[in-house]
Order: sequence, then structure tokens, then C-alpha cells
Amino acid sequence: MNTPTPELARQMANAIRMLAVDAVEKAKSGHPGAPMGMAEIAEVLWNRHLKHNPTNPLWPDRDRFVLSNGHGSMLIYALLHLSGYDLPLSELQNFRQLHSKTAGHPEVGITPGVETTTGPLGQGLANAVGMALAEKLLAAEFNRPGHRVVDHHTYVFLGDGCLMEGISHEVCSLAGTLRLPKLIAFYDDNGISIDGHVEGWFTDDTPKRFEAYGWNVIARVDGHDPAAVDAALRQAKQQSAAADGKPTLICCQTVIGKGAPNKAGTHDVHGAALGAAEVAATRAALGWEHAPFVVPADVAAAWDARAAGAQAEAEWQQRWQAYGREFPQQAAEFERRMAGQLPPDFEARLPALLEAIAAKPEAIATRKASQNALDALAPLLPEFFGGSADLTGSNLTNFKGCVKAGRDTWGNHLSYGVREFGMAAIMNGIALHGGYLPYGGTFLTFSDYSRNAIRMAALMKQRVIHVFTHDSIGLGEDGPTHQSIEHVPSLRLIPNLDVWRPADGLETAVAWACAIERRDGPAALCLSRQNLPRVSTLAQADAIRQGGYVLAEVAAAQALIVATGSEVEIALQAQALLAAEGVRVRVVSMPCTNVFDRQPPAYQDQVLPPGLPALALEAAQPDFWHKYVGRSGKVLGIATYGESAPAKDLYRHFGLTPERAADAVRALLRRSV
Amino acid sequence: MNTPTPELARQMANAIRMLAVDAVEKAKSGHPGAPMGMAEIAEVLWNRHLKHNPTNPLWPDRDRFVLSNGHGSMLIYALLHLSGYDLPLSELQNFRQLHSKTAGHPEVGITPGVETTTGPLGQGLANAVGMALAEKLLAAEFNRPGHRVVDHHTYVFLGDGCLMEGISHEVCSLAGTLRLPKLIAFYDDNGISIDGHVEGWFTDDTPKRFEAYGWNVIARVDGHDPAAVDAALRQAKQQSAAADGKPTLICCQTVIGKGAPNKAGTHDVHGAALGAAEVAATRAALGWEHAPFVVPADVAAAWDARAAGAQAEAEWQQRWQAYGREFPQQAAEFERRMAGQLPPDFEARLPALLEAIAAKPEAIATRKASQNALDALAPLLPEFFGGSADLTGSNLTNFKGCVKAGRDTWGNHLSYGVREFGMAAIMNGIALHGGYLPYGGTFLTFSDYSRNAIRMAALMKQRVIHVFTHDSIGLGEDGPTHQSIEHVPSLRLIPNLDVWRPADGLETAVAWACAIERRDGPAALCLSRQNLPRVSTLAQADAIRQGGYVLAEVAAAQALIVATGSEVEIALQAQALLAAEGVRVRVVSMPCTNVFDRQPPAYQDQVLPPGLPALALEAAQPDFWHKYVGRSGKVLGIATYGESAPAKDLYRHFGLTPERAADAVRALLRRSV
Repeated sequence: MNTPTPELARQMANAIRMLAVDAVEKAKSGHPGAPMGMAEIAEVLWNRHLKHNPTNPLWPDRDRFVLSNGHGSMLIYALLHLSGYDLPLSELQNFRQLHSKTAGHPEVGITPGVETTTGPLGQGLANAVGMALAEKLLAAEFNRPGHRVVDHHTYVFLGDGCLMEGISHEVCSLAGTLRLPKLIAFYDDNGISIDGHVEGWFTDDTPKRFEAYGWNVIARVDGHDPAAVDAALRQAKQQSAAADGKPTLICCQTVIGKGAPNKAGTHDVHGAALGAAEVAATRAALGWEHAPFVVPADVAAAWDARAAGAQAEAEWQQRWQAYGREFPQQAAEFERRMAGQLPPDFEARLPALLEAIAAKPEAIATRKASQNALDALAPLLPEFFGGSADLTGSNLTNFKGCVKAGRDTWGNHLSYGVREFGMAAIMNGIALHGGYLPYGGTFLTFSDYSRNAIRMAALMKQRVIHVFTHDSIGLGEDGPTHQSIEHVPSLRLIPNLDVWRPADGLETAVAWACAIERRDGPAALCLSRQNLPRVSTLAQADAIRQGGYVLAEVAAAQALIVATGSEVEIALQAQALLAAEGVRVRVVSMPCTNVFDRQPPAYQDQVLPPGLPALALEAAQPDFWHKYVGRSGKVLGIATYGESAPAKDLYRHFGLTPERAADAVRALLRRSV
Repeated sequence: MNTPTPELARQMANAIRMLAVDAVEKAKSGHPGAPMGMAEIAEVLWNRHLKHNPTNPLWPDRDRFVLSNGHGSMLIYALLHLSGYDLPLSELQNFRQLHSKTAGHPEVGITPGVETTTGPLGQGLANAVGMALAEKLLAAEFNRPGHRVVDHHTYVFLGDGCLMEGISHEVCSLAGTLRLPKLIAFYDDNGISIDGHVEGWFTDDTPKRFEAYGWNVIARVDGHDPAAVDAALRQAKQQSAAADGKPTLICCQTVIGKGAPNKAGTHDVHGAALGAAEVAATRAALGWEHAPFVVPADVAAAWDARAAGAQAEAEWQQRWQAYGREFPQQAAEFERRMAGQLPPDFEARLPALLEAIAAKPEAIATRKASQNALDALAPLLPEFFGGSADLTGSNLTNFKGCVKAGRDTWGNHLSYGVREFGMAAIMNGIALHGGYLPYGGTFLTFSDYSRNAIRMAALMKQRVIHVFTHDSIGLGEDGPTHQSIEHVPSLRLIPNLDVWRPADGLETAVAWACAIERRDGPAALCLSRQNLPRVSTLAQADAIRQGGYVLAEVAAAQALIVATGSEVEIALQAQALLAAEGVRVRVVSMPCTNVFDRQPPAYQDQVLPPGLPALALEAAQPDFWHKYVGRSGKVLGIATYGESAPAKDLYRHFGLTPERAADAVRALLRRSV
């Protein structure tokens, strides 16, 4: 650890300040307040404590750093640039411009060293909880006496906004319960949010709140005194190492925009360029006599972490080699899992698994089919980390032999509590950390609660699997608060999310396989509460993978019905009704429109021939289906809210019956004559 | 206040228990655990303290009661039935059946006496905060020395699930800051949630947490000891009356399913019928020797609150008459506002308002147009209660002369803090309470955070207006985390929500007028950050009200472009490009598809003639638009995430330009030849 002289530390912090000021000024857009206010904290953490290697941002045992107040992006860009990551000055000068590596908010996958995409407040903190949880689990699973190969901290910066957001409660409460000692959060307590001084809307006793969660709280630290911040951090790390260690919150009192003589301490400095005059005044006030974007050589040299980082990683690599010699199998497994690769035999073993599932043709709920798939898949996939937001027995996310994750005990299934949003964002953090494949369950309707975290997984291209059960009016008596109407179609609109609504056990197993095999995005599995008959055959397993396929063909079809999930059965019954009167109808099952849309247009037109009158059938808001059946096609769906009643009564009440479907096809055919 | 003998109190609590047990048993569905566990608490509150009149559930000064743990619906149904509301025994016997008044979860508007629809956890508590806030504001606005005509409590029951949800943090933190002393919450601390004993996932020191919010906390109350509950409630009410009173949390330790000898204290009793054997055992254990659904006459008589309720209301009516004599204008205003009626001159004054807006044709952002509309509307609508989730200066929800609502000061604009979900659910509570017309702002993308509360407003048919600014890539540099792609189309799918995306100042003002005039549901106004030119004329004001209309007609149109919001300008530019080469294109502006869909089919076909080749243009996920342009129509939208860059660069990057739109029309015309 480097402890610079006070004067050098001051210069190092000011380098962050002025890079942020200059970049925001050049872009005429951005948030200088947080980088200026957290510059000393950042210097202490990044220069004196952070374990990282700028030349290898993917070193598995690096400390994770999350800027949960992501609008302060110039803070992390300055840190990455100064410490030696592949983020040249030209990128800082190109802040917030198209195709730069310095987006308005930090984006993982775009900027080397950025661990997660932040900006939607509270979620970075939740990702950090997920990362710290992954670290603790991996350490328990892979470390051996004398071999601490997984042993790193997760640091997170957060502001008032993160602490006001509800998700901060969900994840910090759980982090306290699970006792994640290597999670260390720095609260930028500057008393300002966009509407002004927070006294009018945020008066929590935050230290007390976090003590109530079981955290180690270090209150009233002067965030502009490097020695005080350093002492707090040392205390936090000491706590990390204790047997009963807790997560730590370091409350740093700071001045937003510190250094800007006229704007510091006001919300004017939060989210806008300072303006030429204030920039000049800031330079003068800080005694920073350098041109824009210029960092003097001695300050730059002090910031350069490449040599120290390479050495730190080299030391770990030595220990890793020793581990590998003693535990070659575990080492290989760890490397595979951190790389996000499936087991080598996964592909080879999958057909037998699907065959076994196809061999059991009884009617079951697709949520149960999902559990059956998990039972079969889990032995192949030790990276599974399942869970549920307090609906394990309803979502059926647990599998045979799964181990409950507990406070200080390893496990691969977690009761997240009634924390849908927190669960989703923690899963994102687990996926980002690497080592586990997270999936988690709740009722489909409560995907509303977690919606932005689902979106963030899709934006970040993370493999996270959402198990959404009780997917329609078919859940019955719980009524409209619990019955999904718009959820399936509205999830389909989230870019890069694959939404599966399988019709039977085999489609469910294939959906799981596709979600697991996917390397570049999340999936949502929308599953029935009620039993559904087997409709697909093993021979159709590959067709299911196309997202939509001809389930039941007829010669010279006059019309088609496209349906998903629990309504496929109704489509087949309607097909039979119509066949009895000589009307020839094709039935298309469309378990995943998103995947279907990625198929070649020729395949799409083959399944859904453009001229053929088409009816769509789905117990959901109907608008979406005009994409496939056209403006003149018919959709049988539900455009209002559900009702509380037994499921079979509801299907009748809402007219989702074979008879109504047959009527609709007849009407289409009359019109097209 | 009635204090029954201990034995009678026991019987009264057991009446609740057994009605719940019998109804769930008959329905073979439901949640007996909470009603059984909270029976004593319910008896104390409803029988001894609650100010209500069962024969007039709409008495304005009644106490509000919210069952935030809404799955325990049989608790409130039993209470309503027993105390004399219009909820006969036959309804309890028809629990959870189609068209009954006893839905799976309590639904406002369906069951007399139910104040809000609950079930999605945490939101009932948030609604209660909104109700208590409305009461405090109305009291400040209408009470006069010697006249306390607004003076009631808001009581809420909640469980572990509500407290785990993030929204509980948002709203309880704000309730502490705003110091809502007449909010009294009973925490059913039974240590059980669906996954089992909560120690594994919920170990908060809840009293300490609420003290950190500035609440009055009464910890460790035996929830099965009526005297203890009564004492706590008296203490809470005393606190309510203090000048610096705080909201109160009464932590009641209870046994879930209390009374069921074999299942009490386990999660088995949470959400399933007890089964015949355990029902019999419960009867025996409680000494309840009555047939199913039978309540002995003395117990029924003790529960009957009609006479006392009528008397309580009569006393208030006397005081109300006295108030009315002294303050006739205020009394009339109060009655108008509690009835949710607009001022009598609203309709008459609106045309002049629109005329004034139409007279200023400069290009402005629709968020600014929204503020202009607020400036003009606010003097007409003293019921406005605006706010923002810490983005007041960005959402522009404040208006000329608005008063900041503070801890102990009345106001009509609130800084909700960074609490989008909490704000939305609090607004629902304000609307349900009556007296104010709530609207609130955040960035459109963060509608994700509040999505289920928006849905609940729509389900409950409440007039709540969401101001969602920064509605597309047009926000520019903040990048993909902040740029809405799927949000406008996915909000349109929520049943009974009107989603407006106006193209200019006049459309914005009309959207506000329609949202205000609407009596049976919420609206979302999706507004631009960037300036947009005036495109509509005053003569089109009525057409705008149809949701979609021909903005720019041509003779013998060969094609049409339908667009919304910021893309209407591009559509008009494309129209001009095509006109220059002799191609005749109609431009349709579609500010609200939901309203357009309610127009007669003939009008819809007149605006969008079925055969006419159509292009849709919207800076959003494109799938939705096939509803109007058909499968073969074209949609220019954005199917991926946005990017961080200046807005004009992004429009080019994503191909949302007049040239691309003209190309698309040409391609449509080639195909249709």
C-alpha cells in the first residue's frame, strides 16, 4: 500500500477533480459534483488499497469496484486512466460522444475496468452485494487450507440517491443477514440531491439504519481527510478478516463539487458543466496550473498502478499454480466457470436428458416441468445458483440435492426473501462476478418489481435466468393483482431478453437449455401454475429451439393458429373442432418470439406463411401479436384485468376456449373469401 | 370505545378466525394464517378504536384502514361483515369465486369498506402513507380554529413481506421525514414467510430501523394480548396528538395461524386451506362449537358497529354543518374535491387556455410545454398535488406559485426524493383518500421502478398522472441506462392506462386536459427533453382528444406515416421530401393509442385506412406498431439499446431521419404496386 505525502495525495485527488471538470466542460454535459466530492476517498481506495492489475482487468482475484452513483462516471474514468487501464486521454476528451469508451454512465463491456453498468440508482450497490456473495460462495467452494485463492473485496461508492431507493433496503438487509464481510461501501454523504439540500426529503439516521441490518458502520468520517478515510478503510478491512465479520458502511461527509469555489455544496454542481468562469476559478482555487487534461508527470507517476498491479497478480498466479498442482480438478473447474463456459460434456449429455423428459408424457404444470428440468440439469451444472424471492415452493426453483445457502454456509439455492428487485440485481452482480450461473424465481406479475434489473441484465449481456411462474389468469383465485396480463408481451419488448413461454415439459426443458447455452443475455421463463398436457415430441426438440415452429401440421392449411404456453392446448382443440367440419388449420407453437425473430426470414415465412389467415391465442394483452398476424388477423387475448375465481371459470369468462378460437378462425376465413 | 370483557373479546377474535378458516376451507384456496394470527389485534383496533360508519363507507372523516398483507383478505372481509358493512355472509361463503365481493385479495371498488387493493407486497403500506399525507394536507388546508373537520387516522396492517420489500423503505423513510403522526402501523411479527422461518433471510432489527426513520416505535407487544395491544394503540394515538407527533409502528409478536393446534407457527398455515381434520381440531382447540359460518348472536351483536358508527358520523355531520355555516366556500370546495369533481368552470375555461397555448408557436420541449400547461391549469385546479422523484428541475413538474410541501407545512408540490416506486404508490394513496389530484415526475426509463404501482392505479381506476420526461434517445448523452426504448410501447400494454406521447405544446396541453378529465384511470405523459416545433393547430384540439388524427392531409394519399412525439416532426419532413417528388403521403399524429382504440372503428379506419400502405415512426421498440400498420407495414424504431452521444448524432445513428422515412415509404409503395 502506497501512502503518498499529504501534498502528493492532494495533487492526486485534484488530478481526478480536474480531469472530471475538463471532460464535463468539453462535453458540455455530465456530472462533476460526485468526482470532485469523492476525489480524496477515491485516492485512498484506489491508490492505497485496491487490489487490481490495470493491464489485466479480468484477473479473477481482483477486488471489485462499483460506482453505484454512476452519474459520477468521470470519477471512474479518471481513475482507470490514471492507474493505467487501456483508457487513453483521448477517450476522456471524447467523454459522452458516440462510440467513445467514456459513455455518460459507466458501461461494462465498453470500458476496461468497469465491472458493471450503473446509473439507475441503487442497482450498483445491489450488484456489489451479488459480487460479494459470489466471492464468499466461491471462497467456500474452492479455497483449501493453506490456499486462499479466492480472497478479494468488493468496494462500492454510493450517494444519497442510492440510499433513498428501496432496493438499497432489500440488498443491504440481505447482505447483513448473509454477513458478507468483504463488502465495503463508501457513502458519499454530501447532503445534496438534485432537488437541493436533502433535509426536506431524506432525514434517515443512516448509520442507525445500517446497524439495524447488522452492518459494521463507521460514521462521521471526514471524506476530504485522506488519513481519516484511510483509517476507516483499515478498520473495515480488519473487520472483513474476523470470523464473524460484517459488511461495512463508511459514512464519509463530503462537499459536493469540492474545489469549485462558487458552486461547491450546491446542487448546481451535480449534473452540469461548471462553465468557463467557474472552471478557471476552480483551477485557481486548487492551485492547479495545468492546461485542460494535463496531469503533471509526478502525479501521473504516482497514480500509475501497472507495476504494482502486475506484481500483485504475479504473486497470486504463483499461489494459483501451487493450488493447481495440489487440486488440478478444482483449478480447472474454477477456470472454466470464471470463463463462463459450460462443462465440456454438456452438449453431449443434453439429448439423453431431453429424451428422458420426453419419455414422461404426463400432464404437468410447466413450473413443475421446470423443476424436473432443474433436477436433470443440476448434476451437469455445478455453477447453478438458484433462488426465489420467498416463493420457493411455488416457483419450484429448488432441485434434488440443492443446498440451502445460509449466513455462513455455502449453498446453491438461496431464499432471497420478499425482495424481487434486489434478487434480480444481486443475480446480475453474481453473473458479472463470474463463477456461478444465477437463476431466481418469483410470480410473473412481480417481474414488474424487478423490471429495471432485468433490463440491466439484457443491456449488460449477462446470463441471468428468471423463473416467472403463475404466468396468467390460469393461477386462478389470487385474482387480478397476481394475474399477468401485459407481462409476457411487455417483457418481449426489452431488447436482448429472451422470453420463453413453453407449452409443455419438453418445451420447458428446451427453454432451459437455450437459456443456459446463451452467452450474451438473460432469459425469462414464463411458466404455468396449472397442469398442461404434453403437446410436442422429441423429434421437435430442434424445432423448439427456433423459438416458433409448426407443432401440428395439416395438408393444404387454410388458416393457422399461433399460440404459446397454456393456450397451445386450446389451439389444438380448436384445430380438432375445425377439422371435424373439414377446415384445415395449422397450429404453430411460439415459445419464444425473440428467438423466432432471429431466424432467417425464409424460415419465419415458412412457419407463418404471409398470406395465410392467422389467429393468435395467448392469455395476455393482445396487441403484440399483430406483428405476426397483421392488422387484419385476429388475436384472442385479454385486454382487461383478470378476476378472482377458479382457473377453469376464468378461461370461460374471458372466452379463451376452443369454441371461441374456432369461431375466430371461421370469421377469418369468411373475411378472406 | 368499547372494551369487551376478556371472554367476549376472545370470542370476538375467534369469530374472525373461524370465518377465515371456514371461508378458505370452502374455497379450498386462500390464506388463513394472517387472519388467525392478527385476530386479537383486529378486534382491538376495529372494535375499540376505529372511527367508521359501516352504513356509509364514504364518510370523508372516517379512519382509513389498509391491509397491506392483502393475502390475508379474509381478515378484512370478516371485519367488514361482522361490523355491519354491506357484505353479507353469502359473500363470505362465495370467497374467491367469480363475481363475488370477496376476491382473493381485497379490491377497492368491489367490496364496500375496502380502501385500496392490496396483495403486491409493500404497496398497501405506501398507499397508507399517501392517505395519511392527504389527511395532513387537507387538515392544514381546511381546518380552522375551533373546527377540526379533517381529523382521522390511517391504520395499516403489515407483515414481514411488506417490510422486506424495498418500497417499505422508501415510504417509511419519507413518512418519518414528513412526520405523519396519524399513521399507525401494526407489524404482524410472526417470524414466518413463505419459505419458512425468516431467520435465514430477514434479520433486521426492525424497531431500530424505524427509529432511524424518525418513527415512534412500540416494540415487543404481545399481539395475542388485547390489553397490551390496546395500551400500545392508546400510546400511539396520544403521540398522534402531540405537536411534534411521529408516525407509529407497533410491533406485535404473533403466532401465524394461531388457534390451529397442529399448523400454527408454521408456513403451512400461510397460504392453504387447513383441511377438514385441522379445521375440526381448530374448532375444538378454540372451543368454538358453532357450525361453519355461524357466529353466535352475542358475539355478532358485540361486533355490530352500525349504531355507534352512525352516531359518530352524525356528530361529525353536526360539526361539518357548523363549519359550513361559518366557511361555506371552503365547505363546498372540500365536498367538490372529495367527490373528485372538477371545478364547475373548468370546462368553460379550458378553450381559452388552449388558445393561449396555441398562440405561442415557438419550439419547446414537451416537458417545458407540460410545465406551461401546469402554469395555466394550476390556478383552475387547487386540487393539484404535484411532485417529482428528485428531478423537479428536469421533469418541470413545479408550476408558478406552487408551494413546497414540507415537514409541517402545507404545500402542493413535494420533493419525493429518489423514490420512484414509493412516489407512485403514495400518489395512489392520495388519490384513494380523495381531496387532491396527484401527479408526479421521473425519467421515463425509471417508470420501470414504479411499474407495478402504475398498474395498481390502472387496476383501481384511480386518477393519477405520471409525468415521464426524457422519453427517448433524444435525451442524448446520459446513454442507454437512461434512454427509453421499450417503455412507451410497454406502458401502452397496461390495461386502463392512457399513455400520451404528445408532439408539441398544444398536444401536451390537450393530453393534460384529458388526463385531468378522466375519472376512471391514470395517465402517463411521455415528454421530450429536447425542443420540438409546433405541428398542430388550435383547430385540431378536438382531433387530438381522439388520441390519433390526421395531422397533415394530402389529396389522394398513396401512403401514410403515423408517428408520435418527437418523431412527428420527422414524419412531416419526410412528407415534404416525398411531396417534392410527387409522392402523396398523409401524416397521422397518434399521441395516445389507448384513447384512439376507444374511438369508433369507422373513425379509426378513416384515420388509418385499412388498405393504405403505412409506415410507423417512433424512437422506441417497433413491434407494437404492427397493430396499426400490419405485418407487412414498416416500422422505423429502435430494437436495440441506445448510446451515449448528443441527441442529433443518435437520431442519425439509429436512422430516424426524414430521408430514411422517405426511403421506407418508397419501399412500401414499390411493394404495393
